[in-house]
Amino acid sequence: MSRALSRRRFLMATAAATVAAVPSRASELASDIRHWDMTVDVLIAGSGAAGTSAAIEARQLGNEVLVLEKLLKLGGSSAMSGGVIYMGGGTPLQKACGFEDTPEAMYDFIVAAGRQHPHLDKVQLYCEQSVEHFHWCVAMGIPYKHTFTDGKGLPGTDDSLYYSGNELTYPLREIARPAPRGHVPGVSGWTGGRTVMAALIAAAKKRGIKYLTQLSCERLIQQADGRVSGLLVTINGEQKAIRARKGVVLACGGFIHNREMVKQYAPELYNCSVPWGNMADLGMGIQMGIGAGAAAIRMDQGFSIMPLYQPTQVLNGIVVNQQAQRFVAEESYHGVLGYEIAYNQKGQAWLITDANSQYGYDDYRVKAVAQADTIDALAQQLDFPEGALQHSTSYFNRHAAAGEDPLFHKAKAYLKPLTAPPFFAYDLGVSSAFFPAHTFGGLHSSVNGEVMDAWGQPIAGLYAAGRTTSGLPTSPYIASGISVGDCTFFGRRAGRHVGGLV
Amino acid sequence: MSRALSRRRFLMATAAATVAAVPSRASELASDIRHWDMTVDVLIAGSGAAGTSAAIEARQLGNEVLVLEKLLKLGGSSAMSGGVIYMGGGTPLQKACGFEDTPEAMYDFIVAAGRQHPHLDKVQLYCEQSVEHFHWCVAMGIPYKHTFTDGKGLPGTDDSLYYSGNELTYPLREIARPAPRGHVPGVSGWTGGRTVMAALIAAAKKRGIKYLTQLSCERLIQQADGRVSGLLVTINGEQKAIRARKGVVLACGGFIHNREMVKQYAPELYNCSVPWGNMADLGMGIQMGIGAGAAAIRMDQGFSIMPLYQPTQVLNGIVVNQQAQRFVAEESYHGVLGYEIAYNQKGQAWLITDANSQYGYDDYRVKAVAQADTIDALAQQLDFPEGALQHSTSYFNRHAAAGEDPLFHKAKAYLKPLTAPPFFAYDLGVSSAFFPAHTFGGLHSSVNGEVMDAWGQPIAGLYAAGRTTSGLPTSPYIASGISVGDCTFFGRRAGRHVGGLV
Repeated sequence: MSRALSRRRFLMATAAATVAAVPSRASELASDIRHWDMTVDVLIAGSGAAGTSAAIEARQLGNEVLVLEKLLKLGGSSAMSGGVIYMGGGTPLQKACGFEDTPEAMYDFIVAAGRQHPHLDKVQLYCEQSVEHFHWCVAMGIPYKHTFTDGKGLPGTDDSLYYSGNELTYPLREIARPAPRGHVPGVSGWTGGRTVMAALIAAAKKRGIKYLTQLSCERLIQQADGRVSGLLVTINGEQKAIRARKGVVLACGGFIHNREMVKQYAPELYNCSVPWGNMADLGMGIQMGIGAGAAAIRMDQGFSIMPLYQPTQVLNGIVVNQQAQRFVAEESYHGVLGYEIAYNQKGQAWLITDANSQYGYDDYRVKAVAQADTIDALAQQLDFPEGALQHSTSYFNRHAAAGEDPLFHKAKAYLKPLTAPPFFAYDLGVSSAFFPAHTFGGLHSSVNGEVMDAWGQPIAGLYAAGRTTSGLPTSPYIASGISVGDCTFFGRRAGRHVGGLV
Repeated sequence: MSRALSRRRFLMATAAATVAAVPSRASELASDIRHWDMTVDVLIAGSGAAGTSAAIEARQLGNEVLVLEKLLKLGGSSAMSGGVIYMGGGTPLQKACGFEDTPEAMYDFIVAAGRQHPHLDKVQLYCEQSVEHFHWCVAMGIPYKHTFTDGKGLPGTDDSLYYSGNELTYPLREIARPAPRGHVPGVSGWTGGRTVMAALIAAAKKRGIKYLTQLSCERLIQQADGRVSGLLVTINGEQKAIRARKGVVLACGGFIHNREMVKQYAPELYNCSVPWGNMADLGMGIQMGIGAGAAAIRMDQGFSIMPLYQPTQVLNGIVVNQQAQRFVAEESYHGVLGYEIAYNQKGQAWLITDANSQYGYDDYRVKAVAQADTIDALAQQLDFPEGALQHSTSYFNRHAAAGEDPLFHKAKAYLKPLTAPPFFAYDLGVSSAFFPAHTFGGLHSSVNGEVMDAWGQPIAGLYAAGRTTSGLPTSPYIASGISVGDCTFFGRRAGRHVGGLV
């Protein structure tokens, strides 16, 4: 259990509490609150893309809005991200770069590429209103440059449009007409998330939204009829009760840094070498929601990323499992490749290259664990089943020479026979390679951000958005920008819904 | 959502309610209860192996115990099962049949064979106390015959001991010394569950345990301090409040028949053709627990079974995925084979046999979808990638002739080259074959059956057991008898713990 939310610390904190009794409920009863330390219309936990977007929309409707942040610095995991927002259906940026796209093509891609049984209602709204979503991002001050790059992976350039996901892999490229939908701030480097959050937070502050930092949310406060009416928080070791007239929005991210939760809910992610996310991704929002009777769904899901590329020459290699069989098109989006390894291949895989397709330098992501002048000798070093790697390689080479990949229809650009010694094997194991993981499971929420109980009924006064909910992102993660895009899009909807309540 | 628990029906039922107001909470406040219709010491929801075992133990401690059952007939899904209980470490039955076993070997097998990060505390207790578990089963009147069968799959004979799981497959047979641990009533046929439950229910009734049938549990009743003090139930359309002085035990099974829940929590199981379980496996216990602030974990897990054998000759065939690659030792326990197909192979697979290893009759489980005189022709009919099935077959044949299987170390008994035309392909797809599925996710519980909240703290007065909890069974399901065994073993512990409270 996270120390920050451990029972012991919580009980110690009650020494300075404003509540009548030591809470033994998973939520705090409103009737036990002797004194409200503060009252606002809309109370939001978390200052990332989801929380800040909710705040802006609630404020637009004239509400007094307070955003709470556990850390000193605002922005959450969104500020750590690449700042990609997945948008399409014909955004001005797509059009300026000469790409046609439709909400239908975007919908077809998301539905076909992700896990079985995605949240179709959310996917549909997200695609239908994506152009409006883009206009809002621009209005909030996120800077986009009207240029496209066909580079693979998050652009280090200042180009703002690229193929951020698995759109061009087989069979998706045949199921849904591909279009680049990764919209990233037009700023060089991989830190677009800082630009996105700087814009959103400036927009929020300009609108008079207040922030309180360095406090810990402990429990939701619930009325006897179940309605959520505030939050119990700890500030400087003192417990305070903050009342929300209209509702509370939980937007406190996922739980990748709460190791006990990850082990219990998402065992595959637990083994990944790099828990990826802001240090406050401790699951508090999900825990508080569960404490108030909410359902948490798809808690096993998350991203598990094997960032094989760049350089793209390594994609000419083949990725194999413990039986030396290929199992994926190697150029797949790194969230898809990572998913296949972590969830479907028991966490183990190797990249096999020849001299031309090797990394050619010591990379921090993956280590070469074998090198030999023949595939036979390489296979022996790796202790693969007799003849298995030899077959996988020769089958691949024979067809690659003809520009074909009957097994996985890898894109022609990466079909180069592996013939130049020496040959290399790189370890892509979830524990041994650089293998970031982040959680996608969370509270069950409606398209309006209402948090649902186990029977699918909304809990009055309780909202959530972003990684505190189960939204668009699934295992496999199919494109960069779907997670932050889900935060801004459904964060806004939660803010509008709670802010419009009278 | 299950109609039985739909909001609408619940609200209608409140017309006859004993509560002051229409409940809008996910649990009912005890202070709203005007009148308790009944009071007992220990109240148990569910009459299957978990509920009945809990009842017996609580009653042994002198408590007044009431068991509630939704259906007319007692016994739950346990009565529908094969009645296998997984026990070992040197039970009298194992010894009588000449097998040596230790708690350590049993522990090693369960930990190595199942999903990553099993509940080690539960596994350890289960193995350490397994011999005592066996003595208790005998004392309760479950009849065992001291004979072993080496037949594969649930014995149709009256033998009581067999290898019920994946103990003999590679690498498990090398990791943990194998022993047969499937203990099944010594009665011919596949309906051992009826024998088990007849014995347990007779033992319960003899001890003065009361049962109420044909009622629907709606909500837990919680005191203001969070303690669970009873259940709100609907009997004959009237709502009644039943008080439990010491506590409530939720033992109402899983949720495989609540299709909306399955889709939300366990998308892979949703696609399996046969939801397997008693018709009351609607998730009510899990829903009520969540309503009271409990955490539900590993909700994606379950069994998904591909019952390939009998006859065992088909295990000489090879099972391949969409790329015509093998991915599992074909003689694996059918829960492991089914898991690999449903979770790791996107729900699709085929069994390839020759004339000697074919079923030889129309089987209700799998259909032959192709037949040809050569592997080439068979592969064409199935539209496999060029040359892929030919390679898989020739590689298998070459090594099988030498008594080897370098890829999956299939047991020697099933290593026969596939050379006799005609060749057959059987469809093992989750939607098209006979592919039973059952849920394993559930409330987070301690080894004493205490139900835990999101912070890992017990909710006072609330217990659970069996498939309402997340216990020993995981995806993959590794051996018959672990699910029912978890029910009796941890049901008993829950009964002792709640029954001993003063």
